[in-house]
Amino acid sequence: MLIHELNGMLVKTAKGTKDMRALWFEKGVVRAIDQRLLPGTFKLVTIRSYKEMAKAISDMTIRGAPSIGAAAAYGIALAWLRGEDLDRAAKAIKATRPTAHDLFYAADLMLFQRDKNLVGAAGEYADGIVDMCRRIGEHGGKLVKDRDRILTHCNAGALATVDFGTALAPMRVAHRAGKDIFVYVDETRPRLQGAKLTAWELLNEGIDHAIISDNAAGHYMKDSVDLVIVGADRIARNGDFANKIGTYTKAVLAKENKVPFYVAAPASTFDSSLIRGEDIPIEERSEDEVLCLGKCRVAPRGSTALNPCFDVTPSRYVKGFITERGIMKPDEISSMKATGPAIYRGPAR
Amino acid sequence: MLIHELNGMLVKTAKGTKDMRALWFEKGVVRAIDQRLLPGTFKLVTIRSYKEMAKAISDMTIRGAPSIGAAAAYGIALAWLRGEDLDRAAKAIKATRPTAHDLFYAADLMLFQRDKNLVGAAGEYADGIVDMCRRIGEHGGKLVKDRDRILTHCNAGALATVDFGTALAPMRVAHRAGKDIFVYVDETRPRLQGAKLTAWELLNEGIDHAIISDNAAGHYMKDSVDLVIVGADRIARNGDFANKIGTYTKAVLAKENKVPFYVAAPASTFDSSLIRGEDIPIEERSEDEVLCLGKCRVAPRGSTALNPCFDVTPSRYVKGFITERGIMKPDEISSMKATGPAIYRGPAR
Repeated sequence: MLIHELNGMLVKTAKGTKDMRALWFEKGVVRAIDQRLLPGTFKLVTIRSYKEMAKAISDMTIRGAPSIGAAAAYGIALAWLRGEDLDRAAKAIKATRPTAHDLFYAADLMLFQRDKNLVGAAGEYADGIVDMCRRIGEHGGKLVKDRDRILTHCNAGALATVDFGTALAPMRVAHRAGKDIFVYVDETRPRLQGAKLTAWELLNEGIDHAIISDNAAGHYMKDSVDLVIVGADRIARNGDFANKIGTYTKAVLAKENKVPFYVAAPASTFDSSLIRGEDIPIEERSEDEVLCLGKCRVAPRGSTALNPCFDVTPSRYVKGFITERGIMKPDEISSMKATGPAIYRGPAR
Repeated sequence: MLIHELNGMLVKTAKGTKDMRALWFEKGVVRAIDQRLLPGTFKLVTIRSYKEMAKAISDMTIRGAPSIGAAAAYGIALAWLRGEDLDRAAKAIKATRPTAHDLFYAADLMLFQRDKNLVGAAGEYADGIVDMCRRIGEHGGKLVKDRDRILTHCNAGALATVDFGTALAPMRVAHRAGKDIFVYVDETRPRLQGAKLTAWELLNEGIDHAIISDNAAGHYMKDSVDLVIVGADRIARNGDFANKIGTYTKAVLAKENKVPFYVAAPASTFDSSLIRGEDIPIEERSEDEVLCLGKCRVAPRGSTALNPCFDVTPSRYVKGFITERGIMKPDEISSMKATGPAIYRGPAR
């Protein structure tokens, strides 16, 4: 099967299985799956302005670095369509979340093309991301052997990347190629994107999996996990990368147990302006995400929490970066900086 | 301040601060703090028979290795008091949970003394545990320096050990000696004993702390944590030990970041019959603990979970065992096997 014939994310609805993206442009508005409600409720939201888009990124209706990149592009396209100030729109969108590089990258690319049809440019940006994710799947799929047990953290699936996924793309490709795989899904506290979103994608896809508490990853890394694949929110020039809090822990466990640890990410996640991982800004989110489960407080009144949303993993823990260009070693990463501009020319063929 | 003058667990109630144990014998019944309801509700339960005690251990009304050891002793004392078959009582109690050594140890000690007053013997057993915990605090407190930032996992406090705590005992002693300490409290999914119980104990004690998601431990281990102290559920002869799932992960993170990693445990937790950690039976609990938060399912219907309650940490990660006899290196552990029988002769002086 050729990779370009592959469907993207399969979503099972009451009306059957649909091939669907996490967000898309449609008749002057953006439609997006509300990721806060999954897996209990599948609901599409309509976003009509850059302000609504900034809110959707802030409140994590749309989340995942490549998806919020596309959301930024679409948000600025909405501003363009309504004749609004593009710089103001870009500023508002960039102020939503600090860590994912894609957000800033996509916004700047839109501003760079301000004399074009930005609805078209945003669509090309999103298509470019999807195309890169397919290629990540194609390259990464070769790393996955029949009967492999793979651990992943958070959600780096189609929901996080418009379609197909970064970390999940190699698993989709391997599964569709008939390989028998099993996925350990870190539940990924505090927001449980693993238990809620990754499990939902794997279930829709028919990929065998089990959710584990983040605490159990070490136990299974000792003798059951063959491969770890995670996504990234921002990758510095030396290959250090930020990803969901807990990623560093899995990288250390993988090293200790000699389990290959891969990072899957498209060019939009590579930030050539940062020399080292320590320079990546880390978002601190509300302590209520830790102190409460849903609306119910679990911690004693009077206790506080610290809630960094991301951590930084040094490149020495990474066996390879799975990119649209192939598998790259950490020391090959600096060459990625030249790839960016290709994105907004649309999918490479 | 002499260690024997120290209070045990301080519990703030509407009627003021009380010095209280996790469980105790009182007028023919056992009274225990219901640990499932903390920190939201402080409630004492009354346990009148070994069957009720077995249920209280199974459903985790009483939890923590030394506390369930005391619960086992009290449970068999209740059977003795009612003239019931002691072997049957011990069998039922031993069948509740497989991992903590204290449970089996305490039950066997009671059977060994079957011709004595077992209410007295159980009380002496509990007093012995509390005395050991005080000594653990005394020895371990010396490891804690002013301004230390300490990470702990799960709850190895007074609730888990009848009084005072194992991992928390050195922190109590350091705090009461006027040292300024800060504790990173792993929330400890899936049952959140850190966020619920350890935070509650530290808050009552006035010790500065913050709850973190288990995923954030690595982030803080990189440059903020000075010391890790955890408890244990069973320690094999080579120093490998079982403790709450996620402990192995913290040990690996500590090693990687050169943070000293200590295990605090009384003699009742050392199992001289097991040569290696791999021989420790690991309890697998209901997948609902992972798939649901309280009664609310978070994972998609159709997804499954794996839920090992404990993991095994090899002794090479342990800088020292904090015991009632002092700080011991892993290779000194085998000598602990001789200490057991001293317990039921009551507190050593």
